[in-house]
Amino acid sequence: MIKKTYLKRTEFKKEDISVSGETVKFIALGGLEEIGRNMMLFEYGDEIIIIDAGLQFPEETTPGIDFIIPNVSYLEKNKKKIKALIITHGHYDHIGAIPYIIEKIGNPTIYATSITKEIIARRQEEFPNAPKLDFEIIKAGESRQLSKNFTVRFFGVTHNIPEGVGMVLETPIGKIVHPGEFKFDYDIDGNAKDLDIWENLGKQKIHTLLLDSTGAEEPGFSVSERIVERELEKLFKKAEGRIIVGTFASLLDRIAEIIKIADRLGKKVAVSGSSMKTNIQIARNLGYMKVEKDAIVPLEEIGKYRDDKILILCTGAQGEPNAQMMKIANGEHRYIQIKKGDTVVLSSSVIPGNERSVQILKDDLSRQGALIYHYKMVDIHSSGHAPQEELKSVMKMVKPNFFIPIHGYYFMRWRNASLAQEALKLKPEETPIVDNGQVLLLSKNSVKISEETVPTYYVMVDGLGVGDVGEVVLRDRRVLAQEGMVVIIATIDRRTGQFLKNPDIISRGFIYLKENKEFVEELRKKIKQIIARIPRAQQIESDYLKSLMRDQVGEFLYRKTKRRPMVLPVIIEV
Amino acid sequence: MIKKTYLKRTEFKKEDISVSGETVKFIALGGLEEIGRNMMLFEYGDEIIIIDAGLQFPEETTPGIDFIIPNVSYLEKNKKKIKALIITHGHYDHIGAIPYIIEKIGNPTIYATSITKEIIARRQEEFPNAPKLDFEIIKAGESRQLSKNFTVRFFGVTHNIPEGVGMVLETPIGKIVHPGEFKFDYDIDGNAKDLDIWENLGKQKIHTLLLDSTGAEEPGFSVSERIVERELEKLFKKAEGRIIVGTFASLLDRIAEIIKIADRLGKKVAVSGSSMKTNIQIARNLGYMKVEKDAIVPLEEIGKYRDDKILILCTGAQGEPNAQMMKIANGEHRYIQIKKGDTVVLSSSVIPGNERSVQILKDDLSRQGALIYHYKMVDIHSSGHAPQEELKSVMKMVKPNFFIPIHGYYFMRWRNASLAQEALKLKPEETPIVDNGQVLLLSKNSVKISEETVPTYYVMVDGLGVGDVGEVVLRDRRVLAQEGMVVIIATIDRRTGQFLKNPDIISRGFIYLKENKEFVEELRKKIKQIIARIPRAQQIESDYLKSLMRDQVGEFLYRKTKRRPMVLPVIIEV
Repeated sequence: MIKKTYLKRTEFKKEDISVSGETVKFIALGGLEEIGRNMMLFEYGDEIIIIDAGLQFPEETTPGIDFIIPNVSYLEKNKKKIKALIITHGHYDHIGAIPYIIEKIGNPTIYATSITKEIIARRQEEFPNAPKLDFEIIKAGESRQLSKNFTVRFFGVTHNIPEGVGMVLETPIGKIVHPGEFKFDYDIDGNAKDLDIWENLGKQKIHTLLLDSTGAEEPGFSVSERIVERELEKLFKKAEGRIIVGTFASLLDRIAEIIKIADRLGKKVAVSGSSMKTNIQIARNLGYMKVEKDAIVPLEEIGKYRDDKILILCTGAQGEPNAQMMKIANGEHRYIQIKKGDTVVLSSSVIPGNERSVQILKDDLSRQGALIYHYKMVDIHSSGHAPQEELKSVMKMVKPNFFIPIHGYYFMRWRNASLAQEALKLKPEETPIVDNGQVLLLSKNSVKISEETVPTYYVMVDGLGVGDVGEVVLRDRRVLAQEGMVVIIATIDRRTGQFLKNPDIISRGFIYLKENKEFVEELRKKIKQIIARIPRAQQIESDYLKSLMRDQVGEFLYRKTKRRPMVLPVIIEV
Repeated sequence: MIKKTYLKRTEFKKEDISVSGETVKFIALGGLEEIGRNMMLFEYGDEIIIIDAGLQFPEETTPGIDFIIPNVSYLEKNKKKIKALIITHGHYDHIGAIPYIIEKIGNPTIYATSITKEIIARRQEEFPNAPKLDFEIIKAGESRQLSKNFTVRFFGVTHNIPEGVGMVLETPIGKIVHPGEFKFDYDIDGNAKDLDIWENLGKQKIHTLLLDSTGAEEPGFSVSERIVERELEKLFKKAEGRIIVGTFASLLDRIAEIIKIADRLGKKVAVSGSSMKTNIQIARNLGYMKVEKDAIVPLEEIGKYRDDKILILCTGAQGEPNAQMMKIANGEHRYIQIKKGDTVVLSSSVIPGNERSVQILKDDLSRQGALIYHYKMVDIHSSGHAPQEELKSVMKMVKPNFFIPIHGYYFMRWRNASLAQEALKLKPEETPIVDNGQVLLLSKNSVKISEETVPTYYVMVDGLGVGDVGEVVLRDRRVLAQEGMVVIIATIDRRTGQFLKNPDIISRGFIYLKENKEFVEELRKKIKQIIARIPRAQQIESDYLKSLMRDQVGEFLYRKTKRRPMVLPVIIEV
């Protein structure tokens, strides 16, 4: 149903550019054809520096999968070269693959800020057999000599989780800037703050700038978090009953701010959802969330307070099936049942693909009497990703010679490259749109996509299995979901070739056999005909018989129903 | 995964309202808890008037289904009462169920405008065994006595298909206004046109106003189609190569305008997609599209013209798998391959649920060198559904005593009811939010939801089957999609209770057995253990054995993989 085409990749002629002298290789193992699964590397001689190791959430085309992680086979082969794994921030699309891949790539030192380190370490505990990690804690403003040829200097960026960092990577061919994920931070008057970071970079002769493309289709500037806070405070003041705020557990800055506002308004906060609890605990331990001890109360005690003194923070504003908000909506939450007068605030955007789930969430909550506010009604969410005008401002301040759009689908990266061509007066060949697995060669005066590629096919995590669900299994799941299946079991006497009993038919997801007995009888007759019609000699070749059954029964079913269930013939010779 | 709760329905106390004297029943068979499947009826004594008979497109929870139609069992039982089926306009969510239900409800007279009639009649031809339809052609401004107690007067509304009508239904309890689906039409200066229709209704003492809720979450006013036309013309002028416009085949007004603009700019139009061709033909035949004979050229002749003289109109701007635009993007279209310099214009919004498909469409087209424009970049689409300010204006002009929000999910209808409470100073009990199948009793001075309900469960169309796919089949499809299935076939000697051969194992969508031989051997061993462990007497009860196998094998598989495939045991006794 959904098909990727890679008919033409970048458009410029490769032979036009001569790569002279030393080259640094840039390779993305994920993140360049999707949102998530971010993992990229820079390679020079026998040294490799990795940035991020994230996971990707499943898609419509990968039913039943838990998530998708980067393919690290290239790194496994070159694990001796790996000098560092740098993590830009603590979101799962940047850290989530670590437990699965870290051992395979030789357990390199992980460079991360305190809070990022803490989030990674906590998650690692969920994997009992995963190795102990080797961390090097870093701070914005610090530098590290990662290897003979790579030095890194970190700078702080505003995202929606504390301590996100960007970096300047000093390499033999020049300085490469990777700002991680960021947006502008605005003061209460709407002035962008901390622009000097970018202006300073602009004085350093930057060779290449990499920029996140997630916001590249969005016009204008970010909604300021100050506005979000103001609007949230207004809603909280207006609420006459309990307030239930749904947001991402990872939006730690937002969560901290909500707790602060609640405290200011004399409301107790109760937290529902273990990921959110863990994150709040980490932030409090590290001093990122300065709240009074009694500001947060246990969920089971909310009944002790007046309704207008309670704010519940929970996960699941996307309508995720097992998250807390969905449990509340379904009436399955242990401590929270919606009642008339509750105010529900969905403080997150809707991730593409979740629109229907969020609609159902809103329907179910409002049906039960809750007053609902979401980001399309009031400014109670702001994305963490710089939109067009902020991207262009950064480009103009940093003034790189080359530009690589990263993170996001092709069209988003194409838009980002277009913005760079416009803002920096660069030619298309100076803003290459590289796909996962392509090797970009950066030399002092040029960049060039090599003919070489590295494997980046999906590695899927499903239950305990990592990589054991492949395209065959997924294709079967998709077919089964569409039209179901029919198993036909023919028990045949080995000597006579005769049926020992009536063919058994099992079907799931096709039609309800119990209500279609006549149809089943017709099908049985058809099966007997098929077997009767072929000579005894060929019956022995059960593969031939099976394929004949598959085709003819399939055709029969299609003629009768215009559906094509999966047909699975089994021949039992006794 | 997605669950509907109906914990509380409308909130007001039913016993507070006494329904006195004569009552008209209002019942929706579809359209009140979804987008689509619109079908409602008014009943008085032994007379029933039906409005619309639409289909709903499948959802995430109904995999493999072609579409969902209204449940007409209530009408089947009361078919003698049916006096008319009125169709408001020719979109599939208003006409699509006709071929499936018309015979069941006694083939009543269909009241429709010329173009609506033509669209219905053409579709009916695709169903060879469907009966000939009995039409009564109506025009805006005309009245019809439908039965002893029901008279209808039609008025024209602006939607995005020609000849949409709304109606005033005169009933024994008063006048009910159902405007169909509409938005305001604006002149080039942005002034709303034809408001006198609504103002006239306001002079007629309207008992109840029904309004579409599809736009009730959208703030403000519609983007004027004049702006859409201006923006499209700008893009068309700017394009240096071919132009490919993707839109809905049903947006006939837009299509007519695009052809007009192309003609004005000296470009030939080629049409790709049979539904679009049919609709254009109908519109031309009826004089709704006045284009020069040679303005439209056959698709196979586009090569004869210079690239900048060609505009291709096609379906599939939503990334629908088999539509023309997807074929173009996949490189599978017979006549159109994308080349650098092509401009692709997606003149439609994204229907919730299609976001990922549209992203893939944009990626694939832009990867091949097309310049892409969509509605988030420029105003090249306008919805056909009145947003909040237009809804409120209509409410204020019509001034009804009661208000019923129709068409759309609960939250949308709740919003619409809130707008009415605000605009008309109505109480919640005067703006009832009715669900599908609930019976609303309208009397002269009050409205009341009855305890009575009529069946409205999904009737699903899948291939040739109508209604034969039920919840059991769908649940199986969903399970199969998530974790696949394992069929276990144990062939046992009837006399000895011993295995006649190794258990056969077939699996699809679970793990790839060919690559997991060891696992299969373990599983076989497990199955033999289960059978060996139970006494011979119980083996005979094959149901008991089966359920034991299902449980224990299921548990074994979960322990090994943390997945729960469907386990289907088959015991063959020979």
